[in-house]
Amino acid sequence: MPLVLPSSAIVREVGLRDGLQSLPRTLPTELKQRWIRAAHDAGQREIEVGSFVPARLLPQMADTGALVAYARTLPGLSVSVLVPNEQGAERALDAGAHLMLVPLSASHAHSLANLRKTPDEVVAMVGQIRARRDASGSRALIEGGVGTAFGCTLQGRVAPGEVLRLMQALLDAGADRVSLADTVGQANPASVYRLFESARAIAGDRLCCAHFHDTRGLALANALAALQTGVNRFDASLGGIGGCPYAPGASGNAATEDLVHMLQSMGVATGQDTAALLALRAELQSRLGDTPMHGSLWRAGLPRRIDTDLEIPT
Amino acid sequence: MPLVLPSSAIVREVGLRDGLQSLPRTLPTELKQRWIRAAHDAGQREIEVGSFVPARLLPQMADTGALVAYARTLPGLSVSVLVPNEQGAERALDAGAHLMLVPLSASHAHSLANLRKTPDEVVAMVGQIRARRDASGSRALIEGGVGTAFGCTLQGRVAPGEVLRLMQALLDAGADRVSLADTVGQANPASVYRLFESARAIAGDRLCCAHFHDTRGLALANALAALQTGVNRFDASLGGIGGCPYAPGASGNAATEDLVHMLQSMGVATGQDTAALLALRAELQSRLGDTPMHGSLWRAGLPRRIDTDLEIPT
Repeated sequence: MPLVLPSSAIVREVGLRDGLQSLPRTLPTELKQRWIRAAHDAGQREIEVGSFVPARLLPQMADTGALVAYARTLPGLSVSVLVPNEQGAERALDAGAHLMLVPLSASHAHSLANLRKTPDEVVAMVGQIRARRDASGSRALIEGGVGTAFGCTLQGRVAPGEVLRLMQALLDAGADRVSLADTVGQANPASVYRLFESARAIAGDRLCCAHFHDTRGLALANALAALQTGVNRFDASLGGIGGCPYAPGASGNAATEDLVHMLQSMGVATGQDTAALLALRAELQSRLGDTPMHGSLWRAGLPRRIDTDLEIPT
Repeated sequence: MPLVLPSSAIVREVGLRDGLQSLPRTLPTELKQRWIRAAHDAGQREIEVGSFVPARLLPQMADTGALVAYARTLPGLSVSVLVPNEQGAERALDAGAHLMLVPLSASHAHSLANLRKTPDEVVAMVGQIRARRDASGSRALIEGGVGTAFGCTLQGRVAPGEVLRLMQALLDAGADRVSLADTVGQANPASVYRLFESARAIAGDRLCCAHFHDTRGLALANALAALQTGVNRFDASLGGIGGCPYAPGASGNAATEDLVHMLQSMGVATGQDTAALLALRAELQSRLGDTPMHGSLWRAGLPRRIDTDLEIPT
């Protein structure tokens, strides 16, 4: 029995949103644009460029409108933004984003602390966003992102049944698609496999993305497990920037370059140029100064030859 | 279809050999004994304590005989040593080691550079070691460890067919069991799955161990893939110490504590106490000073609750 893997997968860059939102400093818009441009040059075709949240809450994201406008000029690029509420969705529709990610936290405690809404209130809000989207004539997609799907630092256990119920509710309320996120790095490959397999049985191809943090070094193993259930889109951030403010020093998202390398070394096409990603990572590291970056590939570099010719004689 | 995993697995500590042999300094024997004792206290039952190589080549390993003698006093502990030649095997038999790991490099170039023998000369030597072992009346096991099984920095590609041929030859020559090692960190989960599955079809349960380096961040994902083929023993080093001298800064072996955490979080029992491993890691880090240690779990710590209750309602 071979390891069943898709022939291609999409690695969606979320460093400009999930990564930068947790930095204490604000990056110049020109540097963000340069990042987006270089990422596009490296073959990235889905980038989450920012978040339409009030600038007083997250000044790092204040230029999201300008970034959407810039990113829309790059051919073939799907431009995502996070929208936490209807006002954000309105701004995203006005700006012309291609995808709105609406976060829902399956942990009640985390939902109240971070979104000041219960999960079911977020579901209702997605219905309102869908109505606004449809009324506007926009074709922007709505993705319901179910976070803390594998555990929560505030609440502890998050019941898989509750995650699946909320995922179904998001679809019923009008989300075009859904994704599952291990927001705080508590997933393991077995829990990933089981939850994604169950979620896929419910949502089919509308289950579109897996989002892992590398808090305990499991991001790539978790991605491998999700991949085996048929998931073929993954969020990642260059250099793994980001990270939970509750776990100082912990690494953040799956590192884009490491994930792309894993996928491509297995023969799963991503359309991304790993060497170009490493060059961009090096440039960002020099511009970000003391911001910790993570991942492993940058240290060792690419093998002289990535050998995907694995024919085994019988 | 669930993710098929064994109910338990053994994590064999190789930090005292594969880790310390690449350090520029020699650790005091008392500190190594303290490490062995604490590892045993943490539940480790298989430890590679050193290497019977000439002390002029690897002074870090000069106290291997004393370590074997010490480790043999700990109840239930299987004491392994690396032996590169017949003289080393003689010393291992005299010392009373329970297991002799004889390394073979499937890469001709690496074999000549590191062992100054061709792979087939190593196979013949294993036959001699088997004869010595049998003549001595010892019950020490002989493990043939096939290294550079997934690629080589010197040679490039290593043909899977050649790896399998050499593995079979080791068994035919008298090795009790065999293992496969990604010596230089070029394996990926797909190549791991395919090669281990093919190897298992040949060697059955005599294929006993997987040895991964984390050079490009894939050690845990590779372990997950090997686990799915039925492998249930893994080499690892505390804090991931070690590392290829040809890739400065690259991390070394799979980090014991991260691997144990992954396995146990999936419900695969290891008998090891992750918190005790983290405490030992912290002590070693303070004693090793500027020696780089790796891994992720130590930063974030254990989740408040490792949840293996993953029942999904239908």
